[in-house]
Amino acid sequence: TGNIPFNETSPYQIVRIFESPEFGRFLALNNMVMCTERDEFHYHEMIVHPVMQVHADPKRVLVIGGGDGGTVREVLKYPVEKVTMVEIDEAVVRASREFLPTMSCEFNNPKLDLRIADGIQYVKEIEEASFDIIIVDGSDPVGPAEGLFTADFYRNCMRALRPEGLLVTQGESPLFQEKAFTELNQCLKKIFGREQVRTLLFYAPSYPSGMWSHQVAVKGNINPAKDFSVEKARLFTKEKKLKYYSEKIHTAAFELPGFVKTMLKETDQAK
Amino acid sequence: TGNIPFNETSPYQIVRIFESPEFGRFLALNNMVMCTERDEFHYHEMIVHPVMQVHADPKRVLVIGGGDGGTVREVLKYPVEKVTMVEIDEAVVRASREFLPTMSCEFNNPKLDLRIADGIQYVKEIEEASFDIIIVDGSDPVGPAEGLFTADFYRNCMRALRPEGLLVTQGESPLFQEKAFTELNQCLKKIFGREQVRTLLFYAPSYPSGMWSHQVAVKGNINPAKDFSVEKARLFTKEKKLKYYSEKIHTAAFELPGFVKTMLKETDQAK
Repeated sequence: TGNIPFNETSPYQIVRIFESPEFGRFLALNNMVMCTERDEFHYHEMIVHPVMQVHADPKRVLVIGGGDGGTVREVLKYPVEKVTMVEIDEAVVRASREFLPTMSCEFNNPKLDLRIADGIQYVKEIEEASFDIIIVDGSDPVGPAEGLFTADFYRNCMRALRPEGLLVTQGESPLFQEKAFTELNQCLKKIFGREQVRTLLFYAPSYPSGMWSHQVAVKGNINPAKDFSVEKARLFTKEKKLKYYSEKIHTAAFELPGFVKTMLKETDQAK
Repeated sequence: TGNIPFNETSPYQIVRIFESPEFGRFLALNNMVMCTERDEFHYHEMIVHPVMQVHADPKRVLVIGGGDGGTVREVLKYPVEKVTMVEIDEAVVRASREFLPTMSCEFNNPKLDLRIADGIQYVKEIEEASFDIIIVDGSDPVGPAEGLFTADFYRNCMRALRPEGLLVTQGESPLFQEKAFTELNQCLKKIFGREQVRTLLFYAPSYPSGMWSHQVAVKGNINPAKDFSVEKARLFTKEKKLKYYSEKIHTAAFELPGFVKTMLKETDQAK
């Protein structure tokens, strides 16, 4: 313990890479663990593959945040035309390039347009209907990611999505961050429509409580839990040797334990 | 912090009840958290309801361990004839009776035959085919529960089960206890048959890694992930106001992330 190969205070946050015998190297922002070499695939496969499998032909993908590179690594397993990634903090990208090579391995891919910029500002200014998929891969709603939990931001995302487009966002923990979890869900439902928003869960051993969510919103009449080709997903899983996602996990992840359903239903009714 | 309303060293282990603002009261044996008031329902619903829903008519149920009472509380939601519970450590029962009333609430139920005795010895001596369901609700494979992870013990359980009977056992964490997890799975497969053993996962926020398993073994040609009445399970879930289990979670819990399937498959092949 105590080995900190990267340790910098950027204009946005304290950026550190730690090393641990249990989890390998890991990235921490303001002392919160963002991803570890050992289990980052849980988070990254589950933020990317459900939406990518549901979309019939995703050509243009926008990633907001995701500075470690794990998300674009997964996206670039598909034959997309272009991935635009907008990360606010170049220190995160630099730390990951140097110390997290298994995550940042696609940063030089010619299909990637990597911009160091404010994602909130970026979605304000983009043309309508310019992306098939938007992936919001931000940190917790304190510090630079706070604006990624606002209605304004998601209204702009909605506008930027093409018809039949999908948005997925890191949705916090129903156990550890109940308020952020339910408020984000409500916020998305107001903008995309109640039936257009669904929550998936996955095991996140290095996050508080170990139970984490991604929330999926769709522009169109699609059920992201079911409207995908099981056979295509099965072959993709096998061919790409995925380690968490599969066609069966896809559907299973959208089945929520009773108390999580109740939590979301009560918030619906309170509004 | 620091409030320890029960603190005793029994002949088997250190038995303590702690209080915490986050998790309510919790039981610790040899300093390992066994269950907390806040989230015990995850574990107890998921060890009991999948097997009870799959069995067509469970009349006699055996619980090995389960001293906090949460498991028999769930079992007694069904119209069984009799539940035999064999807990080795009376101190655990006494601590739970006094300080964990929401778990130990069925200890005076007339259908419960609660015995303070060694479960390993007990299954050696019981008559063949005397139980429909056996639930092994023990602690980790160190200390008094070590014998609950042996082939001898499960051979005796197999013998004690009636045809079409089901056994479920606390199966450790694929992440935190990979060795115990895969070895127990192998042990059950050798005794019950490879196709007769399945693993389910559930979120266990107060256990290490947050990802925990129960392993289910069947005496007969039954797939416990699928061979149950979805409608009956749905009605039961609603009527009993379950907080984790549902007919949909039942099936979803048996879908394992790729790396867990790989872990089990590799152990299969190594044998």
